Amino acid sequence: MKAQTGVFGLRLLGTGQALPRREVSTTEVAALCGVNAEVAQNRSGVRVRRWLSEGETVLSLGAEAARAALKAANLNAGDVDVLLNASGSQAQPIPDGGALLARELGLRGKAAYSLHGTCLSFLLALQHAGLLIAGGLAERVLIVSSEAGSKGLNFAQPESSLLIGDGAAAVVLGPAEHEGQGLHAARFETYPEGADHTRIRGGGSLLRPADPQVTPEDFTFDMHGLQVLKLASQVVPGFLERLRPGLSAGLPGIDRVIPHQASLAGLKLMQRGGWPEDRTEVTLTHLGNVIAASLPLTLHQAVSQGRAKRGETLLMVGTGAGLTAGGVIWQL
Amino acid sequence: MKAQTGVFGLRLLGTGQALPRREVSTTEVAALCGVNAEVAQNRSGVRVRRWLSEGETVLSLGAEAARAALKAANLNAGDVDVLLNASGSQAQPIPDGGALLARELGLRGKAAYSLHGTCLSFLLALQHAGLLIAGGLAERVLIVSSEAGSKGLNFAQPESSLLIGDGAAAVVLGPAEHEGQGLHAARFETYPEGADHTRIRGGGSLLRPADPQVTPEDFTFDMHGLQVLKLASQVVPGFLERLRPGLSAGLPGIDRVIPHQASLAGLKLMQRGGWPEDRTEVTLTHLGNVIAASLPLTLHQAVSQGRAKRGETLLMVGTGAGLTAGGVIWQL
Repeated sequence: MKAQTGVFGLRLLGTGQALPRREVSTTEVAALCGVNAEVAQNRSGVRVRRWLSEGETVLSLGAEAARAALKAANLNAGDVDVLLNASGSQAQPIPDGGALLARELGLRGKAAYSLHGTCLSFLLALQHAGLLIAGGLAERVLIVSSEAGSKGLNFAQPESSLLIGDGAAAVVLGPAEHEGQGLHAARFETYPEGADHTRIRGGGSLLRPADPQVTPEDFTFDMHGLQVLKLASQVVPGFLERLRPGLSAGLPGIDRVIPHQASLAGLKLMQRGGWPEDRTEVTLTHLGNVIAASLPLTLHQAVSQGRAKRGETLLMVGTGAGLTAGGVIWQL
Repeated sequence: MKAQTGVFGLRLLGTGQALPRREVSTTEVAALCGVNAEVAQNRSGVRVRRWLSEGETVLSLGAEAARAALKAANLNAGDVDVLLNASGSQAQPIPDGGALLARELGLRGKAAYSLHGTCLSFLLALQHAGLLIAGGLAERVLIVSSEAGSKGLNFAQPESSLLIGDGAAAVVLGPAEHEGQGLHAARFETYPEGADHTRIRGGGSLLRPADPQVTPEDFTFDMHGLQVLKLASQVVPGFLERLRPGLSAGLPGIDRVIPHQASLAGLKLMQRGGWPEDRTEVTLTHLGNVIAASLPLTLHQAVSQGRAKRGETLLMVGTGAGLTAGGVIWQL
């Protein structure tokens, strides 16, 4: 991907979130995994996360988050031109999650589709929204990220089971109001030697439920955190310099960092180059890693609690399965 | 979605395809479904399709198509800035198919992700590529669509079983060489009252292999062609007029139509408004409906057989699960 030239005009009109009712403590997950609760808490950095329960789905949650974002933007669903589903997990294979979310929201005749890059799906959708709006193809874009990772946990693997939480977040975007407002940089780099470090093997055409050699574990998360960290620590500094020179050692022109909440070690890796802790937004402690919804949930927290204000410049950044590094520099 | 203003500069540099070894006749599929072969042939309009066999996967096929497109463009994989996976079905849930295809192609450090809108995924990726290239974010974009729909057939439902074929196609895109070359219009409209007309219910978070109420049929295609046609016939004429005035009754400024090969009835519906049959490219007869790969396979056929030439204007158009109507007007 080339370095971006110029600014893609874009304005944040509203954010929203929807969290499952059920709070699950680390003590509870540690018991399911048969590991020590205190060690689990220290290693994962997650105190509590939410898991879907009876009557809740990625669609009900995604629609609730979308309605909250629309309300914050003082808009109705009908004001949206394009609905982008930016979720790391599918609701069902066909039709696309965009159409399923459009049905929940009562949208008809609008564009509704998905951008997918596992944990970085939201950033891909944000870049796409910027291109649509700056290109005059859309005026209002709604992005929804909704996750039910708890459905794919393998308690024999405490590392991922302790990390994953469920939830949804949404943003509404519109045209910039002045020059400089919008995306100043966007970059994605995939290093597929890490493709097996974070995976769910079963459920696509390569390995199907009816295949004879299939086991229940094939449909659950399989994460090798140390290998992810090792590869990430090799590629992230160079990636950050290509996103904006100086980023691997500081925060040039950045007011606040909204990182993907990959893991405690992942957050520390991001700060290694000298990013001040008090400028980094954290939701891992109380939401866990909510896959593609982590980035917009963390953005929503920063915006709703007054730590990301109009005119300020955000760095939204992270790594996801792939291994993919991605980042966006965004003047609000 | 707003009407597009201006042209998004984009040039087709090469196309390629990869077809499974195994040819499957309609007589063979009719026997599997327990229906009359002649009736099956007349209703489906498909004489023969390909199905994956031993040693072939969506990834091996996708990579083969990509290499063929790169060769046609006289480029190496390393010349590509962005790899877009535009497939209707997943290889595996995590990581994204973009990363898995990048691994097959030996791409490292490039952007690799997916656009998803079932059968219209290729058009969504084409629009996205146009925005990236016109916006200066990428110089060369590779789009790959690869499908293994045969893995999800339910022979108790002859209608979809007779229709679906496997295959892959790819295109390489670069910057326009002169004004007017590129995308003149792109439009997508989703009518989610049709979300249950074409579906695979199981395999996402809503219905998982481990869920107690699951049946094997939940992981197979479920298509209700008459309902799809009824809804499509209601929404397509208006959609076409919004894509370009006059399109519902003719082909203003269009040299050739590359339609999604949804079904025989679907192709006829597209022509109902007065599109000449000899300007419409057909692959349904010998490839079936190859989901998201149908549009680029049909494009590849027109380009490689000299029926879509530099400077000509194509209409690529279709409907997919959702129900979604989508179209792109593209000066080559």
